[in-house]
Amino acid sequence: MLFFFFVCFLNPAIFGAAMAPTPERKKDYLSMDLSRLLTSAGINIGICALFLSLYSVFRKQPGNVYVYFGRRLSQEDGKLQNINALERFVPSASWIVKAWQITEDELLSFAGIDAVVFLRVLVFSIRIFSIATVVCIFGVLPVNYFGEVKKHMAIRPEALFVFTIANVKDESQWLWVHCVALYIITLSACILLYFEYKSISGMRLAHISNSPPNPSHFSVLVRSVPRSSNESLDDAIKNFFTNYHGLSYLSHQTVHRAGKVHKFMSTAEKVYKKFVRLKVTQFDHKCRANKYRCGLCGGTSNSFQLYHDDFEPDANKGGQDRSERNAEKKECSAAFVFFKTRYAAVVASQVLQSSNPMLWVTDPAPEPHDVYWPNLWIPYRQLWIRRITILVASTFLMILLVPPITLLQGLTQLEELKEKLPFVNIIIKRNILVRLVSGYLPSVLLQLLIYTVPPIMMLFSAVEGPISRSGRKKSACCKVLYFTIWTVFFVNVISGTVLNKLDVISTPKDIPSLLAKAVPEQSTFFMTHVLTSGWASLSSEIMQTFALVYNFVRKNILRLQEDPESVPSFPYHTEVPRVLVFGLLGFTCSILAPLILPFLLVYFFLGYVVYRNQIMNVYCSKYESGGQMWPIVHNTAIFSLILTQIIALGVFGMKRYPGASGFTIPLVIATILFNEYCRQRFYPMFNNISAQDLIEMDRDDEQSGRMEEIHQLLLTAYCQSAPAATSPDVGDDDGSIISKVSITDRSHEISITAHPTWDSRA
Amino acid sequence: MLFFFFVCFLNPAIFGAAMAPTPERKKDYLSMDLSRLLTSAGINIGICALFLSLYSVFRKQPGNVYVYFGRRLSQEDGKLQNINALERFVPSASWIVKAWQITEDELLSFAGIDAVVFLRVLVFSIRIFSIATVVCIFGVLPVNYFGEVKKHMAIRPEALFVFTIANVKDESQWLWVHCVALYIITLSACILLYFEYKSISGMRLAHISNSPPNPSHFSVLVRSVPRSSNESLDDAIKNFFTNYHGLSYLSHQTVHRAGKVHKFMSTAEKVYKKFVRLKVTQFDHKCRANKYRCGLCGGTSNSFQLYHDDFEPDANKGGQDRSERNAEKKECSAAFVFFKTRYAAVVASQVLQSSNPMLWVTDPAPEPHDVYWPNLWIPYRQLWIRRITILVASTFLMILLVPPITLLQGLTQLEELKEKLPFVNIIIKRNILVRLVSGYLPSVLLQLLIYTVPPIMMLFSAVEGPISRSGRKKSACCKVLYFTIWTVFFVNVISGTVLNKLDVISTPKDIPSLLAKAVPEQSTFFMTHVLTSGWASLSSEIMQTFALVYNFVRKNILRLQEDPESVPSFPYHTEVPRVLVFGLLGFTCSILAPLILPFLLVYFFLGYVVYRNQIMNVYCSKYESGGQMWPIVHNTAIFSLILTQIIALGVFGMKRYPGASGFTIPLVIATILFNEYCRQRFYPMFNNISAQDLIEMDRDDEQSGRMEEIHQLLLTAYCQSAPAATSPDVGDDDGSIISKVSITDRSHEISITAHPTWDSRA
Repeated sequence: MLFFFFVCFLNPAIFGAAMAPTPERKKDYLSMDLSRLLTSAGINIGICALFLSLYSVFRKQPGNVYVYFGRRLSQEDGKLQNINALERFVPSASWIVKAWQITEDELLSFAGIDAVVFLRVLVFSIRIFSIATVVCIFGVLPVNYFGEVKKHMAIRPEALFVFTIANVKDESQWLWVHCVALYIITLSACILLYFEYKSISGMRLAHISNSPPNPSHFSVLVRSVPRSSNESLDDAIKNFFTNYHGLSYLSHQTVHRAGKVHKFMSTAEKVYKKFVRLKVTQFDHKCRANKYRCGLCGGTSNSFQLYHDDFEPDANKGGQDRSERNAEKKECSAAFVFFKTRYAAVVASQVLQSSNPMLWVTDPAPEPHDVYWPNLWIPYRQLWIRRITILVASTFLMILLVPPITLLQGLTQLEELKEKLPFVNIIIKRNILVRLVSGYLPSVLLQLLIYTVPPIMMLFSAVEGPISRSGRKKSACCKVLYFTIWTVFFVNVISGTVLNKLDVISTPKDIPSLLAKAVPEQSTFFMTHVLTSGWASLSSEIMQTFALVYNFVRKNILRLQEDPESVPSFPYHTEVPRVLVFGLLGFTCSILAPLILPFLLVYFFLGYVVYRNQIMNVYCSKYESGGQMWPIVHNTAIFSLILTQIIALGVFGMKRYPGASGFTIPLVIATILFNEYCRQRFYPMFNNISAQDLIEMDRDDEQSGRMEEIHQLLLTAYCQSAPAATSPDVGDDDGSIISKVSITDRSHEISITAHPTWDSRA
Repeated sequence: MLFFFFVCFLNPAIFGAAMAPTPERKKDYLSMDLSRLLTSAGINIGICALFLSLYSVFRKQPGNVYVYFGRRLSQEDGKLQNINALERFVPSASWIVKAWQITEDELLSFAGIDAVVFLRVLVFSIRIFSIATVVCIFGVLPVNYFGEVKKHMAIRPEALFVFTIANVKDESQWLWVHCVALYIITLSACILLYFEYKSISGMRLAHISNSPPNPSHFSVLVRSVPRSSNESLDDAIKNFFTNYHGLSYLSHQTVHRAGKVHKFMSTAEKVYKKFVRLKVTQFDHKCRANKYRCGLCGGTSNSFQLYHDDFEPDANKGGQDRSERNAEKKECSAAFVFFKTRYAAVVASQVLQSSNPMLWVTDPAPEPHDVYWPNLWIPYRQLWIRRITILVASTFLMILLVPPITLLQGLTQLEELKEKLPFVNIIIKRNILVRLVSGYLPSVLLQLLIYTVPPIMMLFSAVEGPISRSGRKKSACCKVLYFTIWTVFFVNVISGTVLNKLDVISTPKDIPSLLAKAVPEQSTFFMTHVLTSGWASLSSEIMQTFALVYNFVRKNILRLQEDPESVPSFPYHTEVPRVLVFGLLGFTCSILAPLILPFLLVYFFLGYVVYRNQIMNVYCSKYESGGQMWPIVHNTAIFSLILTQIIALGVFGMKRYPGASGFTIPLVIATILFNEYCRQRFYPMFNNISAQDLIEMDRDDEQSGRMEEIHQLLLTAYCQSAPAATSPDVGDDDGSIISKVSITDRSHEISITAHPTWDSRA
């Protein structure tokens, strides 16, 4: 968001264009000519080039190293080379080359499968829109242009209108070109989707089989353990699992809920910690963080380590006398249960345990880093009601935000408001006010409104009660996706007509023809949306505007030290919906207004490079969902295709060309069947790992004698820390409650992060 | 259906009333007065009494013994006492007493849990509608009557209209009575539903635990076994399961698909069998079936047994050399796999076996009698497309039948037709034609139309590819339920308005007010529907009209012998929807037109006695679904409640009494939440058996040393017979392909039915 304010200061004229869905701009672009579009594209290309150059300079400044190389610093410590002062201020494209060169396997090894899947989304988009561009620019565009509704050059210079399907005259036989193009696009999209789904599910499987033993595969989260007065929770769990899963049960670990005293204590501790760090910063000039501060003074200090050890004197003894100390804490009826084999854990997590389905509820455990501890104390009985509440709240929010969005857009639609509300006339006679109202204010408010949505959705998803961070992010991703599709596509399409006929929603059967009328009209607006909002978002992403400013303020005004552990994780919940919505715009506009496609292609190419770079350098993958995003992407792509086909049906109906409509209906059915097939063929693999694979993995480990070692590690893998246990953390980076247990390096040593864990304090 | 023709001959005046949804009757009853309603009720009570008396006489006739005591004959052989000739023609009520006296445990023991669950539906209906009757007759009815829209006795005798909510004047404060009544009904329904769900799930569990070992608990149906050229199917299955489930794998049995030659052979055999039976009937006068024919000549013959043994010389050796003979047959890639314990079988059926979810698909095996062999050869890959096709076909059928139903109803709505289509005037001047058209023909056609639906739905369900008969029946039950609700409730409610405004469906937001207007108008029609169609269906059920006529024709005209094994199983797919739809009518009319409730109560009471009697005497429970019907019943009840509340909302809105609307909305939300809770709390128990219970059952069997015995029985439990393997049998009684394996009597002896099984012929 801050980026937009920056741009606003730099170039007010462009700012207007960068602000997405204001009908004033829509009106502008509706009558906009090709030369103006090209000018706008030129300006945006210039801005992008400027920001990319700025980035290439900024990334070389030692002061920004935490902003631009967070992952590298935390994962590949000390590998950054020094750059001489002259080079530092010369823009270069070397980062693009580096981002391009890195292979998928390398990315997979350090960024995990989620990052690779995200990049596959961009690869898929590039492929399908390359095909669509070729088909539509050389096939559909000439037909639209010579469609003869409007005489060319009658209006000079030519309006963009002549490039859309609206220019094709009714009953024109040339509409079969559009129909064929739709067929080609749908077929290639389905083929590409099928192979992507296949390769990603294979990749997921290979990743699971080849990566080092994962404690989550041996663990099950059991919730809603019945409490009895004559038996402690520990005993109850032990008795149940030794009784019914005696052969495979290894151990368990109960989950605690921190009380109010604990909460106070942990807050006090946090404050103390901050104070210590301040002191460290001010008095210990040799500390590691300062190394990058001026870029010259080298050497590291042990102050962090000292303080760290001071706080956690018995971190390594955690597993031994934990059970004694547990008794002091408030236990909640949930526990991690460890099994001797992966197969046993999967069986225990999938079979109904008790004849009361609300007791002894078992779920596959998330990875240790992925566990969302604050939610584990939630009684299982509450979950269903939480889910319903959040469903209602999200729907409500989506509907609630339509009036302000429409109103803010309406503020710029002064001509219409003047007709409807006479008193507006009195106000808008004062010229300054008009400029203020119709100029920046609505756009700024609208952006403010839209930028508040992802955090709200993240909060909603946290309240819903997922047990893993990746689950929370996936849920937020879906919510943001629905919201973005709803506001960018549907509200925009309907808003042009909503002031005139408010009963649009009450007539569902008119929707295809409504869409068929509105989408070509809106296509020029969508085009500028891609040009500005899309390209700008990429510039903003690579500049890390917010982090840059925050870093600057923190260091130079607050005089605080960087926290080397607070590396952000990739914001899938904002980036996936963004890319998918551009895909949706691309599909829906492809045959109606093919001019959008080249701009989209540039966006996807640029995005591919930018996101690769960011994943390589900036974001740390603390946890991963194992490619769970792909089914969402697949379903959205199918939804986009079907929406495109429905709009095409509406257009063919409107243009009175029933032959094409007749040809489109089988396409819709085929697309639905294809989706159903993929759901049957691939989707189960994203939820479960097959018995065959699990047993093979177990056998490998047993034969190589690693099993004993894995069992030892298991006991200490899940480590609950108190601070976050009472307040559901909403932000993305709740690094403070991660207890980093390195089972992946296959050693018995446990490396704990700089934050005190619960066990070390008691 | 035949029953209706009977009634038609007996009493044409009543026939008209018995025919359900013809608008002529609707119009009649709209202006019908109370005395006429009571007369109609009186006539119907008379007819019911007549039929019940007739039944009590018919059941004593020895010639009808296969019609009225099919289950007893096949299950409790020879227990029927002789009745002297005089008693035989005196009507008696002893059967009612007997039906009343039988306990639930007895029913459970011989009719299975499905029958008990069906009777619980009636008990639940009796309870809730008793409460509703008390509340509405003493609370709502007086308010409606003194609602003061219409001056009483202005029209003499009083129209039924004054008893509905339509008589309450707008903005009347008395509407809170309706609101309170709605609250009481909803709350009692929810409480009753909760306890029913709880008791039925408990009963289901107890039934599973206490009943003798069931082979289906130890078995898994594996489909889509990958074929390789260098390995036979048998080897592939054996290798896979010994490799991955080595500890628990016991054995397996492949499924065969009969080729065309086999089909021809089996047809030839059937003909031969019939011929043999004819001979037996004509020449062996001592045969068992004749025992009941005249009621006097006693003694039994062994002719059936002889013939039976003749046909199946090696039935008991079936298990031994089966594998050799299997090689000759066409194998399909499906098999029953047997495990050593119940728990192992459940685990194998629930865990994803292969990383390709379309291979090695495991499902819990149905009981041996319940297996629907004709569907087992269907390739698993086809199933999803079959399901979609059937979904589309069912929807299509439901929509397709609206025009003929509306048309048939329109044929009797002559007044309106006369206005719309002038040429009708010419036709209807000929009086005889008018009577024919508007009298019997449309009603007969309508009934013909409606009676064809359950068989069609059964065919659809068979094509869908369920592996069990109970699954097929459950699926057909759902389809018939949707169809009945759609035609009886919605099409009726809308049809009154459909001639005037055809765009009803395009405005979903008007539906509540539309319903609120139409339902009270239709309530008098619904009342007569209960009186006639409901009561008549019970008389028809107990009389077994079709079976009676068929039996008569068969014996006296075709001179065929009864087949003692062809006892029908209970037609849940027609009876459950019928009862549920009457419940729906009761709920929706309760506060709007409470006069319907007493008639409904009589229906449910009568139904309770009649169905108990039928389950006791007529129907044989060859297979059971284990109470899977209850979730359908629960959901329908919740749907009815919510529909009632939505209609009430519409009514309160129309009567401009917003307070009551405000009070109703929380009730809707509470009902939805209650349903969601029940779904969470009880529904999983109807799909799975918990690990705890399964392991306990396994342990019991192991400790008592029965396990070995069970394993022996398992190997011969599933026995495929050829005849039906190629032609999906549509009818309800496909007894010919049941191979009766009595694992329940815990002996090694296998009693095979009179039909030759596949194995005995090779």
